[in-house]
Amino acid sequence: MTKYVLKVEYKGTDYSGWQSQDHGNTVQDHLEKAIKQLFIEKATRLQVAGRTDAGVHSLGQVTHFETIKKLDPYNVRRGLNHFLHEQAISVIDVAISNDNQFHARFSAEYRDYEYRILQRETHSPFYLDSAWYVPQKLNIQAMQQAAKHLLGTHDFSSFRAAGCQSNSPIKTIDAFDIWQEDEMIYFYVKARSFLYHQVRNMVGTLTQIGKGHMEVDDIVTILEKKDRTIAGPNAPAHGLYFKSVGYSPNPFKIQ
Amino acid sequence: MTKYVLKVEYKGTDYSGWQSQDHGNTVQDHLEKAIKQLFIEKATRLQVAGRTDAGVHSLGQVTHFETIKKLDPYNVRRGLNHFLHEQAISVIDVAISNDNQFHARFSAEYRDYEYRILQRETHSPFYLDSAWYVPQKLNIQAMQQAAKHLLGTHDFSSFRAAGCQSNSPIKTIDAFDIWQEDEMIYFYVKARSFLYHQVRNMVGTLTQIGKGHMEVDDIVTILEKKDRTIAGPNAPAHGLYFKSVGYSPNPFKIQ
Repeated sequence: MTKYVLKVEYKGTDYSGWQSQDHGNTVQDHLEKAIKQLFIEKATRLQVAGRTDAGVHSLGQVTHFETIKKLDPYNVRRGLNHFLHEQAISVIDVAISNDNQFHARFSAEYRDYEYRILQRETHSPFYLDSAWYVPQKLNIQAMQQAAKHLLGTHDFSSFRAAGCQSNSPIKTIDAFDIWQEDEMIYFYVKARSFLYHQVRNMVGTLTQIGKGHMEVDDIVTILEKKDRTIAGPNAPAHGLYFKSVGYSPNPFKIQ
Repeated sequence: MTKYVLKVEYKGTDYSGWQSQDHGNTVQDHLEKAIKQLFIEKATRLQVAGRTDAGVHSLGQVTHFETIKKLDPYNVRRGLNHFLHEQAISVIDVAISNDNQFHARFSAEYRDYEYRILQRETHSPFYLDSAWYVPQKLNIQAMQQAAKHLLGTHDFSSFRAAGCQSNSPIKTIDAFDIWQEDEMIYFYVKARSFLYHQVRNMVGTLTQIGKGHMEVDDIVTILEKKDRTIAGPNAPAHGLYFKSVGYSPNPFKIQ
């Protein structure tokens, strides 16, 4: 068997998330269909670093599968994109892994996400489904100060959605950066793993602080209460980008 | 009567261009519908600086209309965007003109356009309808050299599409800049007015030069022949952005 590792970009707008469903309109379904068209032979189901919800985008999702046929990675990328060319899904890198142990999900040492808020007076035709539109001015400094309280190891129950399959609500945030470029506000967050909706819940709460509806120190109280109902609302899916996954060693060639 | 001047952004993807049609799914139709919802009173039809084709975007289209009711420009912007909030159309500025002579089309001293080419090895989910995807590397310097030959006053018959309503094929290009930022190649072109499809025909021809399918000096021959059939193919609509319109005096407040 040959193990192929794919790095995948997608725009989540028109798909029902990553995970395969009967209707077939998920990122996994479209990718598996392209794999079948290219390889003809049977392949294992795709294993993925981080499942994403409907509307969430990816800049560097990682997924792997195995099949008997051995093709050159360059031709795999080219062939898969040929079958995907009408989809908002693009295979941007392909590697063959000779590591029996490598698993897109279980070998991941960290994941990082980006969240984008468009802050301006009028809605923008160009970001309707790719950034959260917030007309109010946000206090970036207040959000940065609050985000510092989320760094490190905490019980994140207050930011955990129903249906979360994680064994424990305790997670470690390794980085949380917030900055503005023109009309776009970026949130960057990095951890070994996240609870279900954790990033969107954290961004939703920080945005309440940015608007002045909550104080910077409220974030500490929210963490301590371990109660989802007191944090801010969930930021919408269409502002969220799954950015990248860290492996050691990196299965992809350094570019 | 009060004359309102609007500056409008739109993403052309889902509309049949600017110009009103019976089916009602054009930018003009959606804007006029919003104006009717906001003002209730009868308003004149919209006059526009530059009609755009289906798929072409706008960063700063200018259009005007007249109606009896006088509302504050800020409230007009807010009100129109309220009715347009589900559309890929946004009114970004509103002014009231006291100049009887002002006309969005006839008072325009120049128009400028931007054309965007995404040049990378794989297609991108994020620019499927907002940039022309060209997988080949393009020779930017060759395109820049060729574009210099288009500057100034020429008979642009070779770049004029059928159905052009201009009295004369002679136009004056005031600026033609080409540059690359990461994977995006930008073309900026400015003139008092353009022939129908002139920008897309020029970009299509320059791209042939960038690919090495034509020589830099071929652009001179193409101009001289005054024959549409010998220029390069029309670059697709979805890479084109109507950028701005110049008026003197500017009806909008300097920002």
